[in-house]
Amino acid sequence: MTTQDNKTWSGRFSEPVDELVKRYTASVEFDKRLAPFDIQASLAHATMLEACGIIATQDLTDIRRGLMQIKQEILEGKFSWLLDLEDVHLNIENRLTALVGDAGKRLHTGRSRNDQVATDVRLYLRHAIDELQEGIRDLQYSILDLAARHIRTIMPGYTHLQVAQPVSFAHHLMAYFEMLKRDAERIADCRKRVNRLPLGAAALAGTSYPIKREMVAELLGFDGVSENSLDAVSDRDFIIEFTACAALIMTHLSRFSEELILWMNPRLGFIDIADRFCTGSSIMPQKKNPDVPELVRGKTGRVNGNLVSLLTLMKSQPLAYNKDNQEDKEPLFDSVDTLTQTLRIFSDMVRGITVKPDAMRSAAMQGYATATDLADYLVKKGLPFRDAHEAVALAVRFAEQNSCDLSELTLEKLKEFSPLVADDVYSVLTLEGSLASRDHIGGTAPRQVEAAITKARKDLEG
Amino acid sequence: MTTQDNKTWSGRFSEPVDELVKRYTASVEFDKRLAPFDIQASLAHATMLEACGIIATQDLTDIRRGLMQIKQEILEGKFSWLLDLEDVHLNIENRLTALVGDAGKRLHTGRSRNDQVATDVRLYLRHAIDELQEGIRDLQYSILDLAARHIRTIMPGYTHLQVAQPVSFAHHLMAYFEMLKRDAERIADCRKRVNRLPLGAAALAGTSYPIKREMVAELLGFDGVSENSLDAVSDRDFIIEFTACAALIMTHLSRFSEELILWMNPRLGFIDIADRFCTGSSIMPQKKNPDVPELVRGKTGRVNGNLVSLLTLMKSQPLAYNKDNQEDKEPLFDSVDTLTQTLRIFSDMVRGITVKPDAMRSAAMQGYATATDLADYLVKKGLPFRDAHEAVALAVRFAEQNSCDLSELTLEKLKEFSPLVADDVYSVLTLEGSLASRDHIGGTAPRQVEAAITKARKDLEG
Amino acid sequence: MTTQDNKTWSGRFSEPVDELVKRYTASVEFDKRLAPFDIQASLAHATMLEACGIIATQDLTDIRRGLMQIKQEILEGKFSWLLDLEDVHLNIENRLTALVGDAGKRLHTGRSRNDQVATDVRLYLRHAIDELQEGIRDLQYSILDLAARHIRTIMPGYTHLQVAQPVSFAHHLMAYFEMLKRDAERIADCRKRVNRLPLGAAALAGTSYPIKREMVAELLGFDGVSENSLDAVSDRDFIIEFTACAALIMTHLSRFSEELILWMNPRLGFIDIADRFCTGSSIMPQKKNPDVPELVRGKTGRVNGNLVSLLTLMKSQPLAYNKDNQEDKEPLFDSVDTLTQTLRIFSDMVRGITVKPDAMRSAAMQGYATATDLADYLVKKGLPFRDAHEAVALAVRFAEQNSCDLSELTLEKLKEFSPLVADDVYSVLTLEGSLASRDHIGGTAPRQVEAAITKARKDLEG
Amino acid sequence: MTTQDNKTWSGRFSEPVDELVKRYTASVEFDKRLAPFDIQASLAHATMLEACGIIATQDLTDIRRGLMQIKQEILEGKFSWLLDLEDVHLNIENRLTALVGDAGKRLHTGRSRNDQVATDVRLYLRHAIDELQEGIRDLQYSILDLAARHIRTIMPGYTHLQVAQPVSFAHHLMAYFEMLKRDAERIADCRKRVNRLPLGAAALAGTSYPIKREMVAELLGFDGVSENSLDAVSDRDFIIEFTACAALIMTHLSRFSEELILWMNPRLGFIDIADRFCTGSSIMPQKKNPDVPELVRGKTGRVNGNLVSLLTLMKSQPLAYNKDNQEDKEPLFDSVDTLTQTLRIFSDMVRGITVKPDAMRSAAMQGYATATDLADYLVKKGLPFRDAHEAVALAVRFAEQNSCDLSELTLEKLKEFSPLVADDVYSVLTLEGSLASRDHIGGTAPRQVEAAITKARKDLEG
Repeated sequence: MTTQDNKTWSGRFSEPVDELVKRYTASVEFDKRLAPFDIQASLAHATMLEACGIIATQDLTDIRRGLMQIKQEILEGKFSWLLDLEDVHLNIENRLTALVGDAGKRLHTGRSRNDQVATDVRLYLRHAIDELQEGIRDLQYSILDLAARHIRTIMPGYTHLQVAQPVSFAHHLMAYFEMLKRDAERIADCRKRVNRLPLGAAALAGTSYPIKREMVAELLGFDGVSENSLDAVSDRDFIIEFTACAALIMTHLSRFSEELILWMNPRLGFIDIADRFCTGSSIMPQKKNPDVPELVRGKTGRVNGNLVSLLTLMKSQPLAYNKDNQEDKEPLFDSVDTLTQTLRIFSDMVRGITVKPDAMRSAAMQGYATATDLADYLVKKGLPFRDAHEAVALAVRFAEQNSCDLSELTLEKLKEFSPLVADDVYSVLTLEGSLASRDHIGGTAPRQVEAAITKARKDLEG
Repeated sequence: MTTQDNKTWSGRFSEPVDELVKRYTASVEFDKRLAPFDIQASLAHATMLEACGIIATQDLTDIRRGLMQIKQEILEGKFSWLLDLEDVHLNIENRLTALVGDAGKRLHTGRSRNDQVATDVRLYLRHAIDELQEGIRDLQYSILDLAARHIRTIMPGYTHLQVAQPVSFAHHLMAYFEMLKRDAERIADCRKRVNRLPLGAAALAGTSYPIKREMVAELLGFDGVSENSLDAVSDRDFIIEFTACAALIMTHLSRFSEELILWMNPRLGFIDIADRFCTGSSIMPQKKNPDVPELVRGKTGRVNGNLVSLLTLMKSQPLAYNKDNQEDKEPLFDSVDTLTQTLRIFSDMVRGITVKPDAMRSAAMQGYATATDLADYLVKKGLPFRDAHEAVALAVRFAEQNSCDLSELTLEKLKEFSPLVADDVYSVLTLEGSLASRDHIGGTAPRQVEAAITKARKDLEG
Repeated sequence: MTTQDNKTWSGRFSEPVDELVKRYTASVEFDKRLAPFDIQASLAHATMLEACGIIATQDLTDIRRGLMQIKQEILEGKFSWLLDLEDVHLNIENRLTALVGDAGKRLHTGRSRNDQVATDVRLYLRHAIDELQEGIRDLQYSILDLAARHIRTIMPGYTHLQVAQPVSFAHHLMAYFEMLKRDAERIADCRKRVNRLPLGAAALAGTSYPIKREMVAELLGFDGVSENSLDAVSDRDFIIEFTACAALIMTHLSRFSEELILWMNPRLGFIDIADRFCTGSSIMPQKKNPDVPELVRGKTGRVNGNLVSLLTLMKSQPLAYNKDNQEDKEPLFDSVDTLTQTLRIFSDMVRGITVKPDAMRSAAMQGYATATDLADYLVKKGLPFRDAHEAVALAVRFAEQNSCDLSELTLEKLKEFSPLVADDVYSVLTLEGSLASRDHIGGTAPRQVEAAITKARKDLEG
Repeated sequence: MTTQDNKTWSGRFSEPVDELVKRYTASVEFDKRLAPFDIQASLAHATMLEACGIIATQDLTDIRRGLMQIKQEILEGKFSWLLDLEDVHLNIENRLTALVGDAGKRLHTGRSRNDQVATDVRLYLRHAIDELQEGIRDLQYSILDLAARHIRTIMPGYTHLQVAQPVSFAHHLMAYFEMLKRDAERIADCRKRVNRLPLGAAALAGTSYPIKREMVAELLGFDGVSENSLDAVSDRDFIIEFTACAALIMTHLSRFSEELILWMNPRLGFIDIADRFCTGSSIMPQKKNPDVPELVRGKTGRVNGNLVSLLTLMKSQPLAYNKDNQEDKEPLFDSVDTLTQTLRIFSDMVRGITVKPDAMRSAAMQGYATATDLADYLVKKGLPFRDAHEAVALAVRFAEQNSCDLSELTLEKLKEFSPLVADDVYSVLTLEGSLASRDHIGGTAPRQVEAAITKARKDLEG
C-alpha cells in the first residue's frame, strides 16, 4: 500500500479521512461476502468493454487473469482486506491494479460503485434465493414424510386453544406445507424483480461510453436491464421485498415452533423432540428444553426488525444514491443467514419428532370435539342450523355439569335436547366418524389427507 | 331484539357477555365495510348448498330475496347495525332470519365464521387491489405527461444531495414511473395469493355436508380453493403481503414527496406546487406550505406501522383460528384507505406542478457537474480511468479555490492537469454535451428518455 | 360560514384548497377530542395576554364568556365541526369570533397553531397518563386480591414450558404485579417530560409581544417552560416515549394473556375465566373461547405498530414544524384508548378467574420438579454443585425410563446415584418442602410471598 | 476438552447435541463481551456464599484466584472460547474448574444461568449508559461551542422547509442541545430500572441456600434487589426501555444530519463539513459527500429495527425464562455500539463545521421572513390579529407578483394594505429587528440565546 492508496480521494481533498470516520464508514468487514459476485460482475463488464472496443483485448486478458488470481486468493484465505480501502470493490480493484497494472485501472471505465454494488447485491440475493428454495423444499419433504405416517393419527383441532373438532395430525402438519408452498411462490415472484441488471447506470445518469448493457445482462443471466439509470442506483425495493418474504417465512416457522413447544409440555405430551435438538439446565438436572423451536420463535423478531430497519432506511431519501444505503447490507445478510440456518435445522428437527398418538387421542376426547357433528346430524334430520346449534349447546352444558362426554349421555337424555335424535346418533359422536365425514378438498378426512400428500409430493417433484 | 338475540351464545353459557367485553370484542364498527362482500359470498354459498341438495330450492329463493333486501337497506343507510351482534356476519344473518325465517337459519350450514370472514376479506382486498391498480396507472400517466414536456429540461442530478451529473428532468421523473411499474407488478403477484377460496374449511376441519367448493370458487371468481382447511382459516399471509406492498408504494411516494418539498424550498426553487395543494399559516401571512407532500411523507409511517402490527399479530400464533386475528382488519383497511387517497391526490398534484427550468439550470451549473465527462474525455484519449479521475480531481480543486467552473479554465491551465487535453475539450464540458453523451438504454440522453416515455405509454396502454 | 371563512388562507392564495386536499389534510375528525384542552390552554393564554397588557380586560371577559359557551356546546353535542376549518383550533377560534367579535380575533395574538397544538397534546396526554395510573393501580389490586387467596396453591413453575420447579400461584401472579409497578414508574418519569409548556414558542422563533410564559405554565400546572422555541414546536419525543411505555405495558399484558389462554386449555385446566369474558362459536356449540386475553395479545401488535409509525414519522425531519407531524395524533390516541380499555377489562377479568388447585398440583407432580432440590441436598452434604447436578441427571433419566417420580425410587436406588443420600431425602422431594425452602427476598416460600403481598399493598396505598 | 465436556447435559440425555444445533444455539460468539461483568458478578456471588457459610473460605480464595487469572487471559487474548461450551458463562466456569478444581464446581451453588445472565447484562448496560452519558455531554459541549460563536448569525427559520421567520443560528443549534438534554434525563431514568439485582432468583423460584441478596447488591453497586424471582429471570423491560431511548437519540441525530446534508447542498451552502468527515466518488472526481451525516441518518433504521426485534421477541412469552430470550443480546449490543460511535463521531464533526453566514443571510432575505413582524406591528397599532394577518397576506401577494421584498414597498403602497402603517414600519421589517423582538425565555433574541447558552453550560458543569 502506497501513501497514495491510503488516501482514496486525495486529489480533491485537503486532508485525509479521519480514522474514526474510516471505521464508521467502511463496509469491507461485512460486504466482503460479495467478493465472488463482484468478480463475476467485473468479468462480464470487462468482456463487454472489450467487445465494444472500449478496452483493448490485452486489457481484458490481464483483467481476467488478475481477477481469477484474486478469486483464488480469497478462497484460500490469503487475500488481505484493508479497511483503508473502504469496501469490497476498492479492495479488489486495488489488488487487481497491483497485479496487472494499467488494465486494472481501466476496469472501472463506464461504471461507478453505485451501479456496481447494486449489481453485486442482486447477484448475491439471486443466489441466496435459489439456495433458500432448496431449503424450503427440503423442509416440505420432512413435513410430508412425517405426515405420511400419521394420516389416521387423531389429535384435537384447536381454535382459541380450546378443543374444536378432531383432526388428522397429518392434516395439521400439511397446513405448514401449504404455508411453505406460498413462501416458495412468493420468493419466486420476488426473484423476478431481483434479476434485473442495474450495471450501466454508472453514478446515476448512465455513461458516455458506447456500452452494451444487454450483453452484460445475458452474460450474467439477468432477465433484463433496469430501464432508468437514476432508479437503477437508488432502488432497494428488491431487498425490502425479499426481507418481507423472509419475515413471513419466519412467521410461519414461529407458529410451527409455538406448537412444537406446546406439544412438548408434559400436560399435552403430544410429541417428543430428539435429544440432539434440546439442551438442559445449568441448575435443574431434570430439564430437557426445546431450545431450537424457542430460538426460531425468538429469531422472528430479528427478521421483523431487519424489515423495519430497511423500510426506515429508505423512507424519504431523495434520489439518487445516498450513503444511507450502505446500511442495506447487514439486515439483508442477517435475514438470509437466519433463514438459511433456520430452514435447515427445522427440517432436521421435524425428522426427529416422535409422535405420541395416545396423548393426542386423550386430548381429543376432552372437550366435546364432536358437538358440531351432533348439530350437523340434527340439521340433516331437518332442523335449521341455528336451532341445532342451540340444542347441542344445551346438551354440552348438561354434560359438562355432569362431567361426562356427549357420547356418554343416554338416548333418552339426548332426545330431551331434540326429539330428532335416534339411535344412529352415537356413530357421529366418535372421533373417527367425525374425521371421515369431512370428505372434500381441504377437509380432514383421511381419504382427502392422503390425496393431499400425494399431490404435494408430485408438485414438489414436478 | 329479543332477549335471545342479546345472548348470542346463551345455550352453553351461564351469564351474558359483560357490556365492556361486548364493546372490546365487537368488530361491527369497522368490519361492516365488508357487508357487500359478505352478501356476495353468502349468495354463492347458498347457491352451492341448493345445488348440492343441502338446502331446499325454496330456502335459496328466500335467502336471495332477504339478502337483496339487506343489501338495499345498507346502501340506503337504513340498516341498523347492532353492537350486541358482534360483527358484520351475525348482523346480516340475524336480519336475514328476521326477514325470511328458517331459511335464514339454514344459511350458515356447512360454514363457520372462520372461513366466512377469511372469504369476505379476500373478496374485499381483491376489489381494493383492482382499484389501486387504477390509482397507480393514473399516477403513472400524470408522471408521463409532465415528463413528456421536460425531456430537454436540465437539472442537477444529485447523489448525497451534492451535484453529480446533469440529468434530464424527464429522466428524473421517469425513475418514479419505474418504481410504480414494479409496484403494479408486485400487487398483481400478491393478488394471485389473495384470490383463493377458503370457504368450505368451516371452523377448521372442513364440513360433513357434501359441499362443492370449486363451484363456490367459480361463482366468486376465485382462481382456486385453498387446499388445507386449518391453513385456510389461519392464513393471513395475503394481508401481510399486501401491506408490505403498500409500505413500498408509500416509501416511493415519500421519496418523491421529499424531493418535491426540497424543490419547493426557495433556495432551490425548481418547481412550484399549485396553491390548491398548499395551505398557509395561522400566524405567518406569507407562508405557502407544501402540505400534501409533507403529509404523504408522514403517512409512510402509518403504513409501516400497520405492517409491524400485522407481523406482530401473527407471530407465534398456534393453529387454527384465534381471536387475535380480529385485529387484522383495521390495519388492512387503514392501509388500503391511505394508499387509495394518497395515489389519487398525488396524481392530481403532479398535474399541478409548475417547473422552473432556469433555476434547475443554474443549480446544475454549480458543482462541477461535468467533471466525469472530462475524466471520460481523458480516458478516450488513452489515460486509464483511475489516472484520469485523479487528474480531474486536482483540476476541480484548483477551480474551486479560484471560484470558477471547469469550463472557465484556460486551455493552458487544463493542460497542466493532463497534456492530453486539446481544444475539443470545451464541448464535453457543457450540460447539453454531457446529457447527450449518455446514450444507451436507461441513460439520460434526450433520445433515450424520449424512447423510454414512448415505451412506457405503450406498455400502460397495452 | 361566509365565503371568506371557507378560504382560510385566501389573502395570499390565488385559488381555494382542492376539496380532496381539504379532506386529506384536515384533522378535525380526530383532533376534536383535544377541544377541552384547547379551551383550557386558550383561557390561560388570554389571562396572561390581559395581565401583560397585550389585550384589554374587556377582550378577556369576552373571550372567557365565548369559550365557556363553546365548551358547553361541545359537551351538549351542539357544536358543529366544520371540515373546512381544518382542525379543532380553527373551529373553536372561528366560533369564538362569531360569538364575541373582535376579541375572538385577538386570542391568537402571540401564539401560533404550532405551539398551540403542542400545548393541547401535552395537556391531553398528562390527563391520560393520570387516568392510566389509576388503571394500572386497579389491575394491581385485582392481582393482589387473587394472589392473597393462593399463597399456598402450588403450580409447576415452567421454563421453556417444561416443568422447572414448584412455585406458589400467588408468587407467579406477583411477577405481573412487579411488571406493572415498573410500568407505573416509567410513565411517571415520562410525565415529567410531558409536563413542560411549549406555548410562547409561537411559529418557531418566539413572539414579539411581551408575554410571560411562566405565568401560563403556572396557570396550566406545567412544571416549567420549554427553553428553546424551535425545539418546542418540533418536539414529539414525549409522544414516542409514552408510546414506548404503552408498548411495554401491552407486552406485559400479552404475556399474562398467553398464560391465561394456556391455563384455560383443557389439558392444563389450571383456571377458568368467567363466562362473561368469553364467547362461543357460530358453528361449534360446545365452544367457550377466552376472547378477551386473545384480543389483548393481538392488540399488542397495534401499539407496537403505533410506535413504529411515530418513529418513522420523526425520522430525518428538518426543523422546525412540518405537516408530517399531524400524523402524530392518531397513533397516540389509539395507544391511549387501547391501553385504557385493556387495563380496565383485564382488571375485571382477573377478578373473575376461578383457580383449579388440583390441576395445578397434578401438573407440578409431572416433570421432576424437585430434582434441583435433590441436587441442593447433595451439595449440602458436601458434593460440589456440578457433580450433584450430574448425579441427579442420571437419577432422572432412570426414573423417566421407569415412568416414575424421583420420590418413588427406593432409598437403595437413590443411593446408587450418590452414596450421600440418606433417609431424610424424601422430605426435600415434596412440593411443599421445595417451596418452603426458597425463603429469601423474591423467593417463592409462602412466608416470603405473604410478605411481598403485604408490602405491595402498603406501597400501593402509600 | 474431554468427551464429558463436549456433552454438557450428558447425564440426562441419550445423544449429544447436533453440531448444527450447537452452532445455532450457542451465544459465545457475541456474549463473550459480557466476560468482565460475568467475572465481576461471580466474585460478588462467591464472596456472599462464603460470608453465608455456603462455601468454604478456601473455596472463595480459589475462586478469586482463578477468576483473576481468567480475566487476565481474556485481556491478553489468550483465553480460548469454545463453541461447545455454549456461552460466556459455561466457558468461564469450565476454565475455572480446570484451574482450581472443586471450588470451581461450587461457584454455581445457589444461582442459575437464568439469573446470572440477567445480572451480567444489567452490569454491562449500566456501564454502557454511563459511557453514553459522557458521549451525550461531549456532543452537547460541541454544540455549545459552535453556538457560542454564532449568536448573531442570522439564518432563515424554516417550517415546511419554507421561510418562516429569521432565527439565530445559535438558537437553531440549541434546539438540538435541548433534545440531548432530554435524552440524558431519559437514560438516567432508565438506569434506575437497570440497576436492580436479579441474582438470587436462581432458575425462577429462588434457591434453598441461605443467601443474602442485599449483600451482593451492595457489592455490585445495585440500588436494590428485584422482588420477585419469576419476574427477575423473565424481565427484559430494561433492554427494551434502553433501546427505545436509543432510538430517540438516533432520531434526534438523524434530524440534525438531515439538516447538515441540506445545508451542505450547494444551493443552500450554509455550512461546510471538514474534508476528513467526507468521502469522494469512484467515478465523479469533483464529489465531496457528507458521508457521516448520511450514515447517521441511515443508522436510525438500524436502532428502530432493534427495538422492533426486541418487542417482537418478548410478545406473548409465557413465564419464566425461555430460550427466545437469548436473542435479546445482539440488538442491545448493536444499539449500544451504534450509539456510542455515532455520538463520538458526531461530536467531532460538529467541531469541524465551517459556517457561511452570508449564504444564511441571503436565504433569510428570500421569502418574506418578516411578514409576521408586520402583522404584529399592525396588532400593536390596534388591529385584531386575524385582520392584520389578512392585510399582510395581501401585501405579500402583491410583493411576490412584483418580485420584491416587503421592505422594498413604498410607504404609500404599504398604507394601501392598512392605514395604520406609518414610517416606523421599516425597522420591524429588518432581520435584526425581527430577531431582537423575540425577547422572552425560549425566544430567538440574541440576549435570550446568550443567556440560554450560559445556563446550558452551567447545567452541564453542575
